[in-house]
Amino acid sequence: MKKFLLSEKDAPTQWYNILADLPAPVPPPLHPGTRQPLQPADLAPLLSGPAIEQEMSTQRWIDIPEQVQDVYRIWRPSPLYRADRLEKALDTPARIYFKYEAVSPAGSHKPNTAVPQMYYNAAEGIRRVATETGAGQWGSALAFAGSLFGVDVTVYMVRASFEQKPHRHSLINTWGAEVFASPSMRTAAGRAVLDKDPDSPGSLGIAISEAVEDAASHDDTKLAIGSAMNFVILHQTVIGLEAQRQLELAGDHPDVVIGCVGGGSNYCGLAYPFLADRLTGKHTGTRFIAAEPAACPTLTRGKLAYDHPDAAGLGPLLYMRTLGHGFIPAPIHAGGLRFHGDASTLCALHDSGDIEARAYGQNEVFSEAVRFARTEGFVIAPESAHALRGAVTEALAAREAGEPRTILFGLSGHGHFDMAAYDAFLAGQLTDHELPQREIDEALADLPAG
Amino acid sequence: MKKFLLSEKDAPTQWYNILADLPAPVPPPLHPGTRQPLQPADLAPLLSGPAIEQEMSTQRWIDIPEQVQDVYRIWRPSPLYRADRLEKALDTPARIYFKYEAVSPAGSHKPNTAVPQMYYNAAEGIRRVATETGAGQWGSALAFAGSLFGVDVTVYMVRASFEQKPHRHSLINTWGAEVFASPSMRTAAGRAVLDKDPDSPGSLGIAISEAVEDAASHDDTKLAIGSAMNFVILHQTVIGLEAQRQLELAGDHPDVVIGCVGGGSNYCGLAYPFLADRLTGKHTGTRFIAAEPAACPTLTRGKLAYDHPDAAGLGPLLYMRTLGHGFIPAPIHAGGLRFHGDASTLCALHDSGDIEARAYGQNEVFSEAVRFARTEGFVIAPESAHALRGAVTEALAAREAGEPRTILFGLSGHGHFDMAAYDAFLAGQLTDHELPQREIDEALADLPAG
Repeated sequence: MKKFLLSEKDAPTQWYNILADLPAPVPPPLHPGTRQPLQPADLAPLLSGPAIEQEMSTQRWIDIPEQVQDVYRIWRPSPLYRADRLEKALDTPARIYFKYEAVSPAGSHKPNTAVPQMYYNAAEGIRRVATETGAGQWGSALAFAGSLFGVDVTVYMVRASFEQKPHRHSLINTWGAEVFASPSMRTAAGRAVLDKDPDSPGSLGIAISEAVEDAASHDDTKLAIGSAMNFVILHQTVIGLEAQRQLELAGDHPDVVIGCVGGGSNYCGLAYPFLADRLTGKHTGTRFIAAEPAACPTLTRGKLAYDHPDAAGLGPLLYMRTLGHGFIPAPIHAGGLRFHGDASTLCALHDSGDIEARAYGQNEVFSEAVRFARTEGFVIAPESAHALRGAVTEALAAREAGEPRTILFGLSGHGHFDMAAYDAFLAGQLTDHELPQREIDEALADLPAG
Repeated sequence: MKKFLLSEKDAPTQWYNILADLPAPVPPPLHPGTRQPLQPADLAPLLSGPAIEQEMSTQRWIDIPEQVQDVYRIWRPSPLYRADRLEKALDTPARIYFKYEAVSPAGSHKPNTAVPQMYYNAAEGIRRVATETGAGQWGSALAFAGSLFGVDVTVYMVRASFEQKPHRHSLINTWGAEVFASPSMRTAAGRAVLDKDPDSPGSLGIAISEAVEDAASHDDTKLAIGSAMNFVILHQTVIGLEAQRQLELAGDHPDVVIGCVGGGSNYCGLAYPFLADRLTGKHTGTRFIAAEPAACPTLTRGKLAYDHPDAAGLGPLLYMRTLGHGFIPAPIHAGGLRFHGDASTLCALHDSGDIEARAYGQNEVFSEAVRFARTEGFVIAPESAHALRGAVTEALAAREAGEPRTILFGLSGHGHFDMAAYDAFLAGQLTDHELPQREIDEALADLPAG
């Protein structure tokens, strides 16, 4: 095991904005009522001024506030590792590096954006921030950030996860935030669902509706967003910017950059600084691979179209490769990857051929996670294990080709709250559902017109 | 939050052995049958050659094998933090530093000794290592180490914990080790207990008996030991040696060094390199504080005597401050601190006045753990929170005195598998039992004669 640490003085002081380097502008978000491009004023009730500005900015470099850098220093720069024990186990000439985001207090990359979002809200005197969470990674990251800036946090957590993963909401409580199982009686959106189905297990779409309603209906409350948006990806670019400097320390450069994709912020955060070199012609040989679950194959089987981010179909129309906002993925353990669409820029770069996509089943993913634990020591999140599976596939291809390729993958979080999933895998109880095309077609039939 | 990182090239290459600097030799372990000092040959069926040598050595510095250093590099040097957000919350002029051992794959300081123990066994061609574990920190650390050196691991886990903490044994399984609820049917010791009480919840003492029997009755199997012994403490001194160098980087020197004590290896590992300066007259002003649970107050209320490490009273006689080998502490959440005795050297240094001791109740400890999560971000183990409680007490004393004292405490592990304990605290359901002197007296009445 080799570890490449960056000293704090070499940490990034600016985020990188890919919008400055895209060959063509990405179709903008549309107002769901007027179908006109969303204006800053439309977002003002929900987001802080800097978040709105960053969402629309095409400026290449954006300063990281000193107070945000100060909090980043709790766990950043995160380590870059060379997985030489895994290389040996695979008998591959490839060099496998991984960027390890599990060192944050919340255990994943999510605090990279939770912290600046909370900082901007605190600076504007906002008293409370509302958000949704599925498996709980994002909700706990926001609770952590809220505790540091003295801002209250309200989390709407999908009821099924709330009940299955009690330790994630314990974590949210420990950081002083409140968390409600969604659908809840606190919002009209929640009450409407419960009226029809008092036992509703909830969904990410419903939880989003509740958080938006909460933020929109309280002057002192804003919304926090965990993925997919431009400004969220912007914040996550610290991952890739650090990895670039660390690979320079290692005297290496990646032939392929791999990450797992739910909404896309983790992967884009790692990949975009390297993709900049491709888009600007500095390094055109690097390949980019987005790894997604076969149970929610947005990039590999979705349709490029405008769609809503929420199940209710009330949110703004976003340009993305989507399975349809009504699509409900199988309850795989990688809860963070169960989003029916992806970030607009990621979808555009996939469409242009700059980013490839691969879909993996649960069993092959966990099989690699267990091998990784037994070679490199770390027990990783099911989400991150998708990126690992992609990296192993590339390492085996390098062995086949007899080429010493350099592979970089993003290890977005630890699996300490996912041990039940490891148990199920080790007991041979994980299933890989075949996803029938009919299910996708049905959900896509409900796409907004136009 | 300030972080002091040590580069890998400045990492310790030798462990520090306090036996070289003790003012007087500590009374040696005695054979339970003959009551004569234990000889290397007595330990040969159970431990590797180097472990036995290290147990008895008075050499000041002992080389860390290159292969062990290589594994240490996965997470070492661990960070030293200055807890300036906590200082601010306490409004204290004290500077509070903590050494953060939670970054290891198993989440605590335990791998610091699991790795060399496993390396020495692997080098001697041992195929399997057996051990006991209570809450599971030690068992998971050994499973991790076993997976790296290709040695099988068998863990006897106290049945009560096995059932209460399923995710700890999931972790052990993920690293490829086998784990059995103890008492088990695999050993005569286990069967004897089950004969009398088929529903026995087990105890650390019973689990130790099972592991010893397993190791002693199989030629290809040795025993691993998680705390209290000299060689285990020796391995843990990497903690203090790194902290010394990191405090030099910070331009500081501790006025007080604090850690939590179960068997003592975590605290001694941190404290002994600093204590060496006290014993050799280099720095005589530093104070040393061992923090223990009020429910298992070995140093503050135990008796200095020879006693067995195991409940059955079959193990060697160790010189220690003990509550009696039959003492059963209340089921506090800090399972790692529920040992009825402490390391011999620690007890001797406590007796000589070089180390002070403090006992804390669960609620005051968790209260600090929650404040820490909300100021410094990290959710820490209940065991480590005892050290934190000691540090906060010292920081408040420094405020009282108006003095900018420097406080160093050991943060031995994260609390990711202890969220149920946080839940209980936040719900106001943690109890602080008063421990009646009668209970201690009863257990002490059973001390071996002499």
